[in-house]
Parts: sequence; structure tokens; C-alpha cells
Amino acid sequence: MTSPILQPTVFVAGAQGSWSIERVVPVAGEALAVAPRLAVHEGESQVAAGAWSLRGIAGHVRYVERREKTALDPVSPPLGRSEATCAVLIPIRKSPQWWALTQDERREIFEARSHHIADSMPYLPRIARRLYQARELSQPFDFLTWFEFAPEHTQAFDDLLGMLRSREEWTFVEREVEVWLSR
Amino acid sequence: MTSPILQPTVFVAGAQGSWSIERVVPVAGEALAVAPRLAVHEGESQVAAGAWSLRGIAGHVRYVERREKTALDPVSPPLGRSEATCAVLIPIRKSPQWWALTQDERREIFEARSHHIADSMPYLPRIARRLYQARELSQPFDFLTWFEFAPEHTQAFDDLLGMLRSREEWTFVEREVEVWLSR
Repeated sequence: MTSPILQPTVFVAGAQGSWSIERVVPVAGEALAVAPRLAVHEGESQVAAGAWSLRGIAGHVRYVERREKTALDPVSPPLGRSEATCAVLIPIRKSPQWWALTQDERREIFEARSHHIADSMPYLPRIARRLYQARELSQPFDFLTWFEFAPEHTQAFDDLLGMLRSREEWTFVEREVEVWLSR
Repeated sequence: MTSPILQPTVFVAGAQGSWSIERVVPVAGEALAVAPRLAVHEGESQVAAGAWSLRGIAGHVRYVERREKTALDPVSPPLGRSEATCAVLIPIRKSPQWWALTQDERREIFEARSHHIADSMPYLPRIARRLYQARELSQPFDFLTWFEFAPEHTQAFDDLLGMLRSREEWTFVEREVEVWLSR
């Protein structure tokens, strides 16, 4: 088995796409422009230009440990469930202070002090999630997080965001935008 | 302070560049083509085509912990020392099995079982080293490692490579090429 070359997923906001952009909410730093629709292109490097586009790689885990993966995998739903007609794309950029930390310091803040994984568990399997890495792709964000859920779980999603933003890890966020979507 | 957008360093093998390519040695998997010279472009995304080109990002540390960084930093020499007229670019690709591991499993193999950092320490400050991440850049390699040293330390460099390749971590390498350079 040979390693495949990873291809970025490209999110293009513009006139086309299977998702309707409901609203764009700047949480920290500069917002993104509003556009009617969002298209998601998996593994394509050349896509039509739009109001904006963001690229990310759905790659390997950076902080998750084996015992956590073993707990997460059985309750982590796939993307594309028919009832999950709501989605939110949240691009995030962290500060230079975060990136100057060593691996053990980042892990300590991420889980031991902010309980990112443990306290997200109760929201599974209602909220599906995929993380795309963007830092190495010369993007204005470090990560693109994608959440999908049924309309009746919107409050749970809001609670999840509130929890994550109340923790020490979030003090390293310098830019964050919510792009609310429906299909 | 705002995070700068990281720009890749581009290594172009062809007719031009400040480094002369002495030889290209395939260690595992497919080789790279031989060319007369290697140019290193820092932070440029558009560069002239050559026999081949590779891009990587000199970003944050992935496995190094604080106590290790504190030990490494004072003895880690910069690139570009006048006496360091030898360089070796070693692109490496690891297997899907490596990337399927969780962070704690990769760290355990990297340091606890392979002693990558601890056993590299004796080669400092003779051998300068920089690691570029390439996995997210749709490259045929996951990392580009760059080593610089004075000619009299060539044997020490060979010893360092031999040590790294004798360890468990190296069993996950599926492609590796040595590009020997001089200036």
C-alpha cells in the first residue's frame, strides 16, 4: 500500500453550490464576504473563483490519542446524513503564541485544561464534524471546521460552540467566522 | 501581533541555483532525476520550472516537547554558516500505517522507542538541520529535511543517517532520496 497524495477540499462561496449561505457571523477578527451559495469541491485544485474560497486538507489527527480515538470513532457520524440539512463552516486562525508552543504544551491546553475532546463527546452523534488543516496551504486560516446536524439540534450546536469558546484554548483564537448553511 | 501567512520554501533542481548537485541516491522507493544545480526559493510560490521541484513549510514543531526544545535550541546552529559548504536534502514519505496512528502512538515511536531527538543531540552543533512539512501541499513527500555541515563532518552525518535508519521509526518510511549538494 502506497500513501496517496492528499488533495485539498475547496470551499467556494459564490453563485453556485449545493449549500445556501444563511448568514456569515464574524466571531473574532475580520469577517468573510456574504454570498448566496457555497460549493464544496473534494480533491480538486482548480475550481471556479467566487466571492472567496478556502482550502483545507482532511488529514491525520494532531492531538487525539488512541484511547480517545477508540471512544470517538463508534459515536462519530459520517457527513451527508439525509436529516443533517444544517451545516456551519467555521474557519479559525490561532495566534503566533499558540504556534510557538511545543506539542506537549499545545496538547495540555487542548485537552488537559480545555477538555476539548471529552466535553465535545456529549454532542455526538447529533453533530457530525470534520476538521481540515489549512495552515500549510498559505491560507488566512489555520483550520476549517465543518459541522453538520439536523435543524432540531441547532441549540445543541450553539451550546457546543459556547463551551469551546469558554475555555483556555479559545484565548489563542485570533480570527474566527461562522458561515451558516442549509440545503 | 497577527499570525503571518506561511509561505512555502521551494527547492528547484535544474540548470540554476547556488547549490551544485553532487549525486542523487535513492534510499527507498523511486529516485529523483539528476540535474546540475539546486535553487532554494524562500517564500516564493511562482518559480521557474526545473527537472523537479519540491515545496515545504518550515512551520511549528510536531513532536518536540518543551524540555527537549530547551535542550535543543542552544546547540542548534543556524543555516548558512560559512564553513557549511556541504548540504543534503532528504525528502521522505511515510506509510499510510504511520499516518493512521494517533498522536501519542507516533510520539511513542518517534522518541520513546526510536530516540530520534535524544540520539541526534550528539551531532549538534556540527550538523545544522531544518525540517519542512510537505504532506499538506499535495507533494510526493511528507517532509523535506535539509542538513548543512562542513566537509570534515561528512562522516558524522553518515553516522547520523545510519542511526536514524536503524530505528523503528524508519520502518514507516516508504520513500526516501538523498540529494547531496555543495557550494
